[in-house]
Amino acid sequence: MSAVVAGAGLAGSLIAVYLARHGHRVTVLERRPDPRSPGARERGRSINLGLSQRGIQALRGVGLLEALEPLTVPMRGRVVHGPDGALRFQPYGRRADQVLHSVLRHDLNVLLVAEAERLGVTFHWDTPVREVDSTVPSVRTDTGEHAADLVIGADGAFSTVRARLGRARRMDLHQEFLEWGYKELLIPAGADGHPRTELRALHVWPGDEGLIVAHPNVDGSLTATVFLPFEGEAGFAGLTTPERVRSFFARCFPDTLDLIPDLVRQFLDHQEASLVTVRTSPWHLPGGAGGVVLLGDAAHAVYPFFGQGMNSAFEDCSVLDRCLREHPADLPTALAAFERARRPHTDVLAELSKRNFVELRDKVRSPLFLARKKADLLLHRCFPRAWVPLYTLISHTTVPYGEALARARRQDRLLGGATAALTGVALAAAVHQTRERNR
Amino acid sequence: MSAVVAGAGLAGSLIAVYLARHGHRVTVLERRPDPRSPGARERGRSINLGLSQRGIQALRGVGLLEALEPLTVPMRGRVVHGPDGALRFQPYGRRADQVLHSVLRHDLNVLLVAEAERLGVTFHWDTPVREVDSTVPSVRTDTGEHAADLVIGADGAFSTVRARLGRARRMDLHQEFLEWGYKELLIPAGADGHPRTELRALHVWPGDEGLIVAHPNVDGSLTATVFLPFEGEAGFAGLTTPERVRSFFARCFPDTLDLIPDLVRQFLDHQEASLVTVRTSPWHLPGGAGGVVLLGDAAHAVYPFFGQGMNSAFEDCSVLDRCLREHPADLPTALAAFERARRPHTDVLAELSKRNFVELRDKVRSPLFLARKKADLLLHRCFPRAWVPLYTLISHTTVPYGEALARARRQDRLLGGATAALTGVALAAAVHQTRERNR
Repeated sequence: MSAVVAGAGLAGSLIAVYLARHGHRVTVLERRPDPRSPGARERGRSINLGLSQRGIQALRGVGLLEALEPLTVPMRGRVVHGPDGALRFQPYGRRADQVLHSVLRHDLNVLLVAEAERLGVTFHWDTPVREVDSTVPSVRTDTGEHAADLVIGADGAFSTVRARLGRARRMDLHQEFLEWGYKELLIPAGADGHPRTELRALHVWPGDEGLIVAHPNVDGSLTATVFLPFEGEAGFAGLTTPERVRSFFARCFPDTLDLIPDLVRQFLDHQEASLVTVRTSPWHLPGGAGGVVLLGDAAHAVYPFFGQGMNSAFEDCSVLDRCLREHPADLPTALAAFERARRPHTDVLAELSKRNFVELRDKVRSPLFLARKKADLLLHRCFPRAWVPLYTLISHTTVPYGEALARARRQDRLLGGATAALTGVALAAAVHQTRERNR
Repeated sequence: MSAVVAGAGLAGSLIAVYLARHGHRVTVLERRPDPRSPGARERGRSINLGLSQRGIQALRGVGLLEALEPLTVPMRGRVVHGPDGALRFQPYGRRADQVLHSVLRHDLNVLLVAEAERLGVTFHWDTPVREVDSTVPSVRTDTGEHAADLVIGADGAFSTVRARLGRARRMDLHQEFLEWGYKELLIPAGADGHPRTELRALHVWPGDEGLIVAHPNVDGSLTATVFLPFEGEAGFAGLTTPERVRSFFARCFPDTLDLIPDLVRQFLDHQEASLVTVRTSPWHLPGGAGGVVLLGDAAHAVYPFFGQGMNSAFEDCSVLDRCLREHPADLPTALAAFERARRPHTDVLAELSKRNFVELRDKVRSPLFLARKKADLLLHRCFPRAWVPLYTLISHTTVPYGEALARARRQDRLLGGATAALTGVALAAAVHQTRERNR
């Protein structure tokens, strides 16, 4: 089989590796330059990545976990920074595999591209897709036409493949921007070379005016992503002078001014970026002997608040690989099976990722919410198999997203019932006390 | 003020007329050839149009109603064709102005283009938009750059202006295709030159397997639009042989075979088209001294089942004109006021248009539904001002769509309450009877 992959990002280069390992002829077209070229690391910009169970499984499937290990920092839990500077550590779990792995998108991308090339994949850099013909199927670039049995659109949230297909065929598209955006700031290692804060954890500064998440890097620095509204005085539109930036961070995230000595300069220098949710349907169109299929962000971009963007894209690769192996002589059936297996679950992920934004922003200081979270974790500790919190199901298992949500909802109902029962007992006790007193 | 309008369709040419009447310099860019050129009428394809109150008001605003009159056929009500061939006439209302006016898109378009040209508007035909820069604002075509105070995207459901803006700015987009499409068939006038069926009405063939709507033409013919599922044996995908087409129509719409002698040939020759709902936000982006704004289908394409696509686009034109006159020295404020005034209402229209599809397909044979419709109409006849059915509010008034829906909901609740009360009385009576009998 021959395949043309549009996009040499994380999803595109991993699916190229999967296909090449099965002996397929793979060509990858990428509009950007080779990530291994000088200066490419600096040009790139991204939210740092937390590799979790789904991504790990997909990388294990192509034998890349060991090569990756030195590029990652394990995160054993979450350090929550309070507005008073107080720190609270929440471990992800007690089991050794309940950790996330922080990695730079660029480093992971270079590893995957190099592996694909080693397996015989041809990369065309600086080669944007111009047109897609799903009936051949083929992709046209400025330098020529690339026909293949299978065309894969792995070209990101603003996929050109998707746009070109949508023009010719009936494709639903839902594209929604968050009214908040983000900027990245670097928390450098200390002057002595040691990290300025706990390195083996994800750092979170929740809040209703802004959120920060920081991932550790192997060199002892951390990359902080600051999420703020675009509009308003306390948004990117308003925070345009050193005084305003300094007083905003002093008020909302006081300890960041110690962790990032040049915070104000970095904040004013760096460009803000936007966050988008994309759902589309269908993901695949049959054509010729095979067809066209979308995967990763091209098929289902999500907000980053559940840390599942890359992980779900990698899971797409392993599921598509499985479907192709299950239907080796029938590409259209394999593509239909892939979409059927994945789309309901990534739709759930999109909703969960939106919900987690609201949780991080609004609920994280609500006593009732925190009490339920605590009960959830406590029950997991008591019944580690029977009771698994949603976050654990999403990040530390490969239970499909939709099933994870259904299970969490059942648990939630139980917890709600238990809370109601406990409230009832407490009320009854109070009434009893009052009565006794009144006697 | 100077304005560049992308699209010389119905919305684009009407807004050009509005602007030119106020002395603004207007340039219109259109990717298609001049509709007045030879063969243009035959090349065009569209659902026939029913001009209702909102569209009439907008055309009255530029003094075009009289010139339009000879191009239209008044429709005084709906003729419903039953599966047994039985006909039922439902008048739109008893007032003389409660009629719709059937018109060919092409004829109306030519009228508007000629009027715009008469007022000094410059048209560039065969000139697709390539890029839009909202910061100038300006539009680039293959032949040059057109800068203006105001750029208007009136280039339809698959608007290039919208796509170009969305690439650069955060614009939400929801694009949903119906799983049904349509084909147009011509019901010719009889051999004696007389119409083959009642001409001064809209004809409807409801049904759950397919729908037909037919609009009269001034020459005594009618244009029928056949709506069917794309997929399945009884959909466009399956109806590919003369036998299948004939037996499908004989079963579902028997009288059409008499009305359209060459139905089978027409059905097999004509191309099917798709139906899309588009919602987007924002509609306007400030830039330079003014900005860019979308209107008509570019801003809010809807399914045709409420007959409001053109009417709402025309209403956009009169509302935008009003906003521009209310804020003559402040274009960005005028554009913001326009979007604020319109978007909530066209969002409602999109939902109503979806709902009307379901009604036409599924509910039109439900006795409960029909009983409620009848009660609705009866109440309107008794209390013509106090009680106005939703269809009347949408088609025969200019009450904003959102307010029309809110009012209809209040009436619905009353009707529901009345139904419940009547049921209660009937039950009580039955119980009373039973008791009496048991004495």
